[in-house]
Amino acid sequence: MDGVKLHGAWASPFSNRVVWALKLKGIPFDHIEEDLPNKSALLLQYNPVHKKIPVLVHGSRPICESMVIIEYLEETWPQYPLLPTDPHERAVLRFWVKLIEEKGLNIWIVYRSVGEEQDKAVRESVEMLSILEEHGPNKGKKFFGGDGINIMDIAFGAVACWIGAIEEVSGRKIFDAAKFPRLNAWKANFESSPVIAENLPDQEKLRELLARVREKRLSSSTHK
Amino acid sequence: MDGVKLHGAWASPFSNRVVWALKLKGIPFDHIEEDLPNKSALLLQYNPVHKKIPVLVHGSRPICESMVIIEYLEETWPQYPLLPTDPHERAVLRFWVKLIEEKGLNIWIVYRSVGEEQDKAVRESVEMLSILEEHGPNKGKKFFGGDGINIMDIAFGAVACWIGAIEEVSGRKIFDAAKFPRLNAWKANFESSPVIAENLPDQEKLRELLARVREKRLSSSTHK
Repeated sequence: MDGVKLHGAWASPFSNRVVWALKLKGIPFDHIEEDLPNKSALLLQYNPVHKKIPVLVHGSRPICESMVIIEYLEETWPQYPLLPTDPHERAVLRFWVKLIEEKGLNIWIVYRSVGEEQDKAVRESVEMLSILEEHGPNKGKKFFGGDGINIMDIAFGAVACWIGAIEEVSGRKIFDAAKFPRLNAWKANFESSPVIAENLPDQEKLRELLARVREKRLSSSTHK
Repeated sequence: MDGVKLHGAWASPFSNRVVWALKLKGIPFDHIEEDLPNKSALLLQYNPVHKKIPVLVHGSRPICESMVIIEYLEETWPQYPLLPTDPHERAVLRFWVKLIEEKGLNIWIVYRSVGEEQDKAVRESVEMLSILEEHGPNKGKKFFGGDGINIMDIAFGAVACWIGAIEEVSGRKIFDAAKFPRLNAWKANFESSPVIAENLPDQEKLRELLARVREKRLSSSTHK
């Protein structure tokens, strides 16, 4: 009755965010792998507005949107806190999460596009990373909040841990180590931390998938 | 030292969101009216990333982004709760706030554009309103959470209470009473509730301002 189910997909960064939070908090859950071109009737019933994964179901109650789910997990299972207790520090992290939510999607346009559309997505991705490199609240810290992974690490992880595969598949360099030394150091810390390292999509499989999606997109757009 | 200051602008719906929350909670504050084409040095220092209002300053600590500010107010001043206590109900409201944050901006494109760009903004605005009319969690309720104003009412108020002026200035009908009866009933409830009614921008002044902005935009775009 009170079990936790996650309707997700292995290659989805949004789905991975929720997996990371569940695992960091040690919450047992059943993972239901959705076939994205052919989503389950249950998923469509749980998320009639967006019809998207991830959806977390706690007992019989669904929750949609990865960062909304993470706030829910935080309020329901206090162990391994993903937000600090000080309201101002919480607000600073939520400010950054909002930026990622608004600007981070550009990264996924890069591997599905060419020409001007791709140039724009690259430019906007680099702009977001530059803001984060300069102003991000992780100066002199291992993670965005300090020594432990928090809500902003999880939000940005969904961009940073996919960027390598996107760069390879698209042939565009975005996350330059010389240009973004602090963010690259953060990425190394994040990807090597125990729960995250064990719960990242296989990079080779991911590259293959992104390449297939890219090819399909581009061939369908040239036939328009 | 612990005073609250709000850097805002009278005609900004985002600024108004924060004013509503402060007034509902009865938090005393100083309002600093920013001249938007010529923002104060303090504002730029407080919000170096977006350089935008509203910024709330509590003591000496700034908080940016209207909905992040409202979560902060909620955590710092519990009186007149803007979120319910049940984590699932909180998640449902945050889901809807996120939708408004993602899609609500289309409304402000409508009054600054013409042709295809305006058609697209109208279409997307109507689509968002249709989703909210059909699925919004205010069925049989006065407001989105019940009898009191909550975070989602405040988020959507920033769209709904500007839409009349935008329709008049742009000559486009969006918020049709026959098409959106539930949302129009909500709007009447919201706009007539005491704190909101006293803290809405003067509609005539608002129309004048939007018409001036529209004229300036359109004349500068034809000279390109």
